[in-house]
Amino acid sequence: MAVLLYGKPVVEEIERRLMPEIDELKARHGTTPSLVVVQVGDDPASTRYVGRKIQSCERLGMRAQHVLLRSDIGPAALRNEVARIGASKDVHGVLVQLPLPRQIEDPDASGGADPIDKFDVLDAIPPEKDVDGIAAGTVAELYRARTRRLTFLPSTALAVKRLMDYYRIETRGKRAVVIGRNDITSKPIMLMLGGRICDASVTWLHRHVSKDIQEEALAKADIVVTAVGRADYRITREMLKPGVVFIDVATRVTESGKLVGDADFEPVSEIASAITPVPGGVGPITVAALMENTVRAARFAAGAGGLGYTFHQGPAQP
Amino acid sequence: MAVLLYGKPVVEEIERRLMPEIDELKARHGTTPSLVVVQVGDDPASTRYVGRKIQSCERLGMRAQHVLLRSDIGPAALRNEVARIGASKDVHGVLVQLPLPRQIEDPDASGGADPIDKFDVLDAIPPEKDVDGIAAGTVAELYRARTRRLTFLPSTALAVKRLMDYYRIETRGKRAVVIGRNDITSKPIMLMLGGRICDASVTWLHRHVSKDIQEEALAKADIVVTAVGRADYRITREMLKPGVVFIDVATRVTESGKLVGDADFEPVSEIASAITPVPGGVGPITVAALMENTVRAARFAAGAGGLGYTFHQGPAQP
Repeated sequence: MAVLLYGKPVVEEIERRLMPEIDELKARHGTTPSLVVVQVGDDPASTRYVGRKIQSCERLGMRAQHVLLRSDIGPAALRNEVARIGASKDVHGVLVQLPLPRQIEDPDASGGADPIDKFDVLDAIPPEKDVDGIAAGTVAELYRARTRRLTFLPSTALAVKRLMDYYRIETRGKRAVVIGRNDITSKPIMLMLGGRICDASVTWLHRHVSKDIQEEALAKADIVVTAVGRADYRITREMLKPGVVFIDVATRVTESGKLVGDADFEPVSEIASAITPVPGGVGPITVAALMENTVRAARFAAGAGGLGYTFHQGPAQP
Repeated sequence: MAVLLYGKPVVEEIERRLMPEIDELKARHGTTPSLVVVQVGDDPASTRYVGRKIQSCERLGMRAQHVLLRSDIGPAALRNEVARIGASKDVHGVLVQLPLPRQIEDPDASGGADPIDKFDVLDAIPPEKDVDGIAAGTVAELYRARTRRLTFLPSTALAVKRLMDYYRIETRGKRAVVIGRNDITSKPIMLMLGGRICDASVTWLHRHVSKDIQEEALAKADIVVTAVGRADYRITREMLKPGVVFIDVATRVTESGKLVGDADFEPVSEIASAITPVPGGVGPITVAALMENTVRAARFAAGAGGLGYTFHQGPAQP
């Protein structure tokens, strides 16, 4: 049976590291790390995710603000609002909850002639406040993959890295498969795994790759990271190599109201060497990684922290 | 026997498209496209490459300037020089010839305490003049992979795309292998092939991937793009699937003075369905792609051209 890669101890370790940093920011710099989450429209899943981020900030003694905007806001107005929020010196981190409504995600498809789109909105976040790691400058640093020069790793990629490190999952030279091309989950994880941060050999799969080719790649994989989350997509035990490390970034609510990932969990956990549960795996670490990035942003603002991340294998020494 | 993917007809097609654009820039906008190539030190291979770029500009009636700097220049001085060149309104494109000397490529390794490195030098190129597609803003657009919003595709990636289009090589859903992690050749090609521009399934190989895993991936590949160029690296016929499309971006001069790529050319060409010769394959197209990007940059400056690239399959209709 697989080792269950629970998120909880990883979250606890991240928070144990953050707490003295938050205290120090308050005591020595007179500042409290502050995150603004911008949500457009009231999609229930987004509302739930945003709620968790806000609660986590509050639990750690940080400030959080939830800005809820009407779903019919135009791209230019949203961009201006994000820029306005980002300009405040009391705000350290700005996150725009994705996905955005159709007219902003894809203005062409919705018939709009507006040349401003989602990426212009995201690029309005000041680079030193881009805690979700999505704006142009942050993306370029991920591409360049210099651990010591990173401003922000995207929260999900950082969560996967902290998870793999905590459980001592080796990546260098391993066959990794990353499924999906989302700009904020799979794509940064692919670049992180295959680039200089993790040195794995990555095969990148997505909707244009046939079932046969996907299965061929999965059957060889030492590490699978998947973030599809569609009802018609399921990775079964037969598709995987015994001993695989399975990291399930997807979350989807079934018709019966159950939260599941992309793995057919019970059978896969019988042959995997390690697997993240859903819920309770990557999800909570992603929130903790966002907290880590928000504290980083507050440290940047206070002149108390530099670029780069420090990674180490295994649980922290007491 | 493989179809030989000669660069010449692709170059001719690119140049036939550029010539009226250059004429129009001169006649209607009173401007001549102008490229500055900055070379640091006098490495003979770099000097040869730079020479070809300059000659190609001149042959097309464009302006070119070769700025040769001493090999012991410091990173800050080089960055300032690049910024100064980029600020001139008479300069449309700025290219910094890579690799740079050790003290700039990797200041830590050479014992320097200078926090400025290669990427800071490259980021001093104004985004609308970054004809090599290497500065932070340009890299982010490649990551996002929106064909209609690209400022500049890196010359080598653009060359590979124009080559594949000309010879009608399908990429969507194909198994592609990209070998190498160079920021200006393999990495952009990997992102282009696996992302929304080409929709292939990419396996990304590099020095940290064992020989076994590399061979396993190569044996399945429909398309191989390789850019290693080391004497101890050779891809042989036995390692490949019959019918493979082999795109050889590497160039290396052997002890006997012959220019070769990564493929064991003769035997590989007996089983491949298509292969680029070295010399005469990707190399000349890379120079033409740089010319295309320089004309783009001049059109941006004249207000005569917008973002995005247009791609089409097969030779252009007369």
